[in-house]
Amino acid sequence: MTRSTVHQSDPRLDLVLERIVDIPRELVWIAWTTPEHLKKWFTPAPWTTVDCEIDLRPGGIFRTVMRSPEGQEFPNVGCYLEVIKNEKLVWTTALAPGYRPSSRPSVEVAECGLIVFTAVISFEPHGNGTKYTALAIHGEVEDRKKHEEMGFQDGWGKALDQLVAVVKKM
Amino acid sequence: MTRSTVHQSDPRLDLVLERIVDIPRELVWIAWTTPEHLKKWFTPAPWTTVDCEIDLRPGGIFRTVMRSPEGQEFPNVGCYLEVIKNEKLVWTTALAPGYRPSSRPSVEVAECGLIVFTAVISFEPHGNGTKYTALAIHGEVEDRKKHEEMGFQDGWGKALDQLVAVVKKM
Repeated sequence: MTRSTVHQSDPRLDLVLERIVDIPRELVWIAWTTPEHLKKWFTPAPWTTVDCEIDLRPGGIFRTVMRSPEGQEFPNVGCYLEVIKNEKLVWTTALAPGYRPSSRPSVEVAECGLIVFTAVISFEPHGNGTKYTALAIHGEVEDRKKHEEMGFQDGWGKALDQLVAVVKKM
Repeated sequence: MTRSTVHQSDPRLDLVLERIVDIPRELVWIAWTTPEHLKKWFTPAPWTTVDCEIDLRPGGIFRTVMRSPEGQEFPNVGCYLEVIKNEKLVWTTALAPGYRPSSRPSVEVAECGLIVFTAVISFEPHGNGTKYTALAIHGEVEDRKKHEEMGFQDGWGKALDQLVAVVKKM
């Protein structure tokens, strides 16, 4: 493992959320990589994250189960690609653990809004806080649009607010 | 980057070629990671590999163009996932460079036999030679079957024979 990949964003295919938060990046990292903390902030209320499994290494599992206010559960399984402590976390839903290509979703699941994407979360020091960047990389314009319509900006932004609140209570 | 992933093979979904070759693994590595050498062995004759692009790092491009005896060209674009010199090389066609999910192939291309898989090539010292293991990991039983029917064992085996011949001429 040598140089880290530089991610070039393509506005046609990607979505990005960039924010300054007033907590140090070491704590943002912990909130992103510890199941007990992640469950408290990962899904914008009133949705909840009821389960989380993290094997923090390239090829390792990143699994969450989200629950809707009506009680329906949506499991998500992804695979970590890059793990650079306090700096960058990359995972994808295009691969399952061990880099196995994800099985094609049933039409039913696909209609529920399952989106294939790679997430690149970057943490840079910014004064006493952190410049936080979440980049969602898609393979198709339709996936980017669907993700946008599902409320990427609002949802990931609210989740980040929740993360900050969780960290401040740690 | 810490621990490397251990790859557990699933016979329902995976294909594996394991062989002992009488050349040192450092040379097998060079043959796999240098475009000028790779083009000489990668495709079983009478097919040829007419172009090759390698950016040898996680997230980097692995692109080849194969040409059929009739002159038709088939480009393949994949992404490296793990690069451990002389030991292990992992790439996938489920992702494009920069970990971007691959765009869905057109029906036409899919019918030409494009298969989504992750390849794990392992090189272990074995006396003065190398124990060579090529593992092809699929997400669907149908993809494994299609790959098998396309001649995985025969094709990857012949390519390995060509690799050994190329290395012996280096």
